[in-house]
Amino acid sequence: MKLASVRNGLPDGGLVVVSRDLSMTVPAADIAPNLQAAIDRWDEVSPALYALYDRLNAGRAEGATVFHPDAMAAPLPRAWQWLDGSAFPSHGKLMQKAFNLPPIVTDLPLMYQGMSHQFLGPTQDVPFVTEQDDIDFEGEFGVITDAVSMGTTAARALGRVRLAVQINDWSLRAIAPIEMKTGFGWIQAKPACSVAPVAISLDELGPAWAGGRILATLDVQRGGALFGAVPSTEMAFGFHDLIAHAARTRSLCAGTIIGSGTLSTASFRDTGSCCIAERRAIEMIDFGAPRTGFLSFGERVRMEARIAGRAHPLFGAIEQTVIEQTVVGGVGT
Amino acid sequence: MKLASVRNGLPDGGLVVVSRDLSMTVPAADIAPNLQAAIDRWDEVSPALYALYDRLNAGRAEGATVFHPDAMAAPLPRAWQWLDGSAFPSHGKLMQKAFNLPPIVTDLPLMYQGMSHQFLGPTQDVPFVTEQDDIDFEGEFGVITDAVSMGTTAARALGRVRLAVQINDWSLRAIAPIEMKTGFGWIQAKPACSVAPVAISLDELGPAWAGGRILATLDVQRGGALFGAVPSTEMAFGFHDLIAHAARTRSLCAGTIIGSGTLSTASFRDTGSCCIAERRAIEMIDFGAPRTGFLSFGERVRMEARIAGRAHPLFGAIEQTVIEQTVVGGVGT
Repeated sequence: MKLASVRNGLPDGGLVVVSRDLSMTVPAADIAPNLQAAIDRWDEVSPALYALYDRLNAGRAEGATVFHPDAMAAPLPRAWQWLDGSAFPSHGKLMQKAFNLPPIVTDLPLMYQGMSHQFLGPTQDVPFVTEQDDIDFEGEFGVITDAVSMGTTAARALGRVRLAVQINDWSLRAIAPIEMKTGFGWIQAKPACSVAPVAISLDELGPAWAGGRILATLDVQRGGALFGAVPSTEMAFGFHDLIAHAARTRSLCAGTIIGSGTLSTASFRDTGSCCIAERRAIEMIDFGAPRTGFLSFGERVRMEARIAGRAHPLFGAIEQTVIEQTVVGGVGT
Repeated sequence: MKLASVRNGLPDGGLVVVSRDLSMTVPAADIAPNLQAAIDRWDEVSPALYALYDRLNAGRAEGATVFHPDAMAAPLPRAWQWLDGSAFPSHGKLMQKAFNLPPIVTDLPLMYQGMSHQFLGPTQDVPFVTEQDDIDFEGEFGVITDAVSMGTTAARALGRVRLAVQINDWSLRAIAPIEMKTGFGWIQAKPACSVAPVAISLDELGPAWAGGRILATLDVQRGGALFGAVPSTEMAFGFHDLIAHAARTRSLCAGTIIGSGTLSTASFRDTGSCCIAERRAIEMIDFGAPRTGFLSFGERVRMEARIAGRAHPLFGAIEQTVIEQTVVGGVGT
């Protein structure tokens, strides 16, 4: 099943079902007004959503219209909790190189709590105050959980995953290492993320949902040129491990979003990267200095995930322009 | 004006107004169903709330009943964003000592994003999985903001503070330094906070709201014995500075909670402490080893804030018991 949230002027958007081939959509507001409400009552409402999805795919859903990603917000335009992992070891190693950081010695998953009161839609412009902050993207996968009780094991956590999503975790590289050195995690370096238009149920992934992982390749384009085509095969922890890690001392609410961290592989010379900072680190290794610049205002970034043999991207595409945030009289607009 | 949220089975509770002397309360649901809704439409609803507060204080509010803190949730039982500063330098210095951490070199405010989908009410039991995590309290003040645009200056941010609150930022000291060393901030070490029953408008503070600071003394009792009576005079940044720090690269939603970090003073031998870890650090300085243990299940902690000459605590009292979280079959209850 594919779900999305149409922009309707309300902070949570309006729940819609999207056809398997991403061509058509139909409102689901009579089942649940928005995705958070659906997740809050998942067992109760999901059968009706699946039935509507079946009718839509069969061309028999009343009120169906053509699917326009531009009309969509993020699947959850806001969430009560966003916990982002960093589960691809190759990313950590390259970041260490890029920013001359000490190695992180831990057997536990890495995870920070990020800004969750706003997730940008898949084609919304992305505002930043200044290019001097070194604007970068980070392509990754995520899951949306049902409620998870404190102390839930990884094995049990697997059964609490409801939907999969694709995220661009925008990052400001001039700030990130400074905040990281405080030990407090990131506030300024991690503004609002963007999310691909469609959240999908796990059955939609088929064998590409295995070991608590979304097995797919993320294609990243910068200005129309391929930047990376990175498979998720090297995820060191499954999403169930990340959920159990978070839930060791807290209960998670329904609608918690858990992120994988930027996709990355040890074969980065073949796959390319899902963020600029990694490419710069590779250039530092190869040439002694980075050559690729961070993003300028007006640049476009596109990300979509694919599975071999499937005609359509899993989550639709994120395709956005980076713009300058206007600040007037000391107050941003 | 004093506001609180009665436990009514709904996730956001029900808005009530509380009398100046904390003796009486009256439902305000006909003005706004809950505090988040009131903050979302503050300019529109606050005049009616002030008018109701005046009637309640004058003994003329219809439907008024005796105020029972036990019936209250946290003023915001959940919030879209909780950004906790660490603005008392003495606390940082003692933590460095307690956990053998490197000094944090920064001119910027320290801040992490914490769990915000659940804030415990003032007298709710506080569940933890194990005493082995070294359970500690952290008494602090906070503010609830209106919406703040990206790029807002500290001077302008001052005008976006709507309410003041008092928080116990529960902390697990066996985990905190481990997570801190990753640079990612705290997930496991910072479970749900507790909040005193009453949120107050700034006029309620009078001259005790100055320089973006809440000037009051926080009394902390452990098991009925005074643990600290710590004034907030050494807060190195005002709340407006903390807000502007957070808003440099993100917009804040209405209902964002900003924390001061644990109150602490350089005169800790006179004032005592607002957390156990600080007392242990002082014991390490004095005796070479800590003597005070962390909390055991069944222990009670009380915190209330006062201003000299006032008969009533500013925010009511937090008074709670630490209990063991039951985990059955790998899933917490």
